[in-house]
Amino acid sequence: MSTGLAPELDAFYQVLQRRRDVRGEFTGEPVPDDVLDRVLGAAHSAPSVGLSQPWDFVLVRSEQTRETFREHVRSERDVFADSLTGERSQTFAKIKVEGVLESSLGVVVTYDPSRGSPAVLGRHAIADAGLYSVCLAIQNLWLAATAEGLGVGWVSFYREEFLASLVGLPDGVRPVAWLCLGPVSELADTPDLERHGWRRRRPLSEAVHHERYDG
Amino acid sequence: MSTGLAPELDAFYQVLQRRRDVRGEFTGEPVPDDVLDRVLGAAHSAPSVGLSQPWDFVLVRSEQTRETFREHVRSERDVFADSLTGERSQTFAKIKVEGVLESSLGVVVTYDPSRGSPAVLGRHAIADAGLYSVCLAIQNLWLAATAEGLGVGWVSFYREEFLASLVGLPDGVRPVAWLCLGPVSELADTPDLERHGWRRRRPLSEAVHHERYDG
Repeated sequence: MSTGLAPELDAFYQVLQRRRDVRGEFTGEPVPDDVLDRVLGAAHSAPSVGLSQPWDFVLVRSEQTRETFREHVRSERDVFADSLTGERSQTFAKIKVEGVLESSLGVVVTYDPSRGSPAVLGRHAIADAGLYSVCLAIQNLWLAATAEGLGVGWVSFYREEFLASLVGLPDGVRPVAWLCLGPVSELADTPDLERHGWRRRRPLSEAVHHERYDG
Repeated sequence: MSTGLAPELDAFYQVLQRRRDVRGEFTGEPVPDDVLDRVLGAAHSAPSVGLSQPWDFVLVRSEQTRETFREHVRSERDVFADSLTGERSQTFAKIKVEGVLESSLGVVVTYDPSRGSPAVLGRHAIADAGLYSVCLAIQNLWLAATAEGLGVGWVSFYREEFLASLVGLPDGVRPVAWLCLGPVSELADTPDLERHGWRRRRPLSEAVHHERYDG
């Protein structure tokens, strides 16, 4: 279907539309080094408050580390499941929340608030601005992986202190994400959570306001 | 210079490399409606924890609102400037931190923690996960704007309560960013902060670790 856009612009938007949060489709095949370098380079080219680049990427391939993390994620999944009742409980039971072992590697993305301190330009009024920068890097990574034909799954069923200890983060450095990364059999057309009836996406028009929040 | 990559992949990475945090290059020309729709649609297609899509976008064109915000930003700029001494102070004095009036419009991006609650899938262990989702939407917006030839500047010299009041955010809804958006005369090759000697980018190799943070 033609969008009427220039081919390069069209291809760019297609990457954004193809991107999915992958849990079940990882093949486990290795990621070539040059591809991984480009994907991490994309993350590293993200904007950051005061050019602080407060992110780091810990690449986890060790089976033992991944099995330990997966066990922890399973127990946190149970914590969440126990908070649900009725239809929510049944719907959640069908949903896979991680591909820690099936993916090719884990990328633990961290935030170091001391980077560029004490005077981080643009962070004096908003303490979380450094954390925001790390998320921008994550989205760059996610999109670049998608453009390369890889899948990414953000695992968030964990306690920060557990993951910090698992990969040896120094005091003050905070884990922001465990990203499962690797080749996939396919990228689904519809988000898993929508496909399984957990939640539907809202229309853009509901999210856009004019001049004021009630406008 | 040839990268050896397929043209569409090469074009994708070029968008990431061209993206800048714009302060001084806005022309103030209007953004066509169809372009703005695509850019906001890109933001809205970002991943979100539990498919909660906790973001909203308040488009601010009002001169009066923008002038009020700009005055506030100036006073917060002064707060930061007063914290600096010596070379830092002199370097900062040269740096423009906002294009609130010169850009075509402001996009206030907000976070509503109540969206999808009480049981947001994937947020029980990490309270900030919803905030992370909003940042992923911001990066999608930023890259789409870049692909469309527009510039974006993230203003972070403000107090959240001031901006929340200015655009009428309900209790509990948090402003995450004021993004200046619009056509630009050019996108600089080098980030402003690096060009003015505030800070240099670190090499990717320093940010990548293996198995553990000290690896």
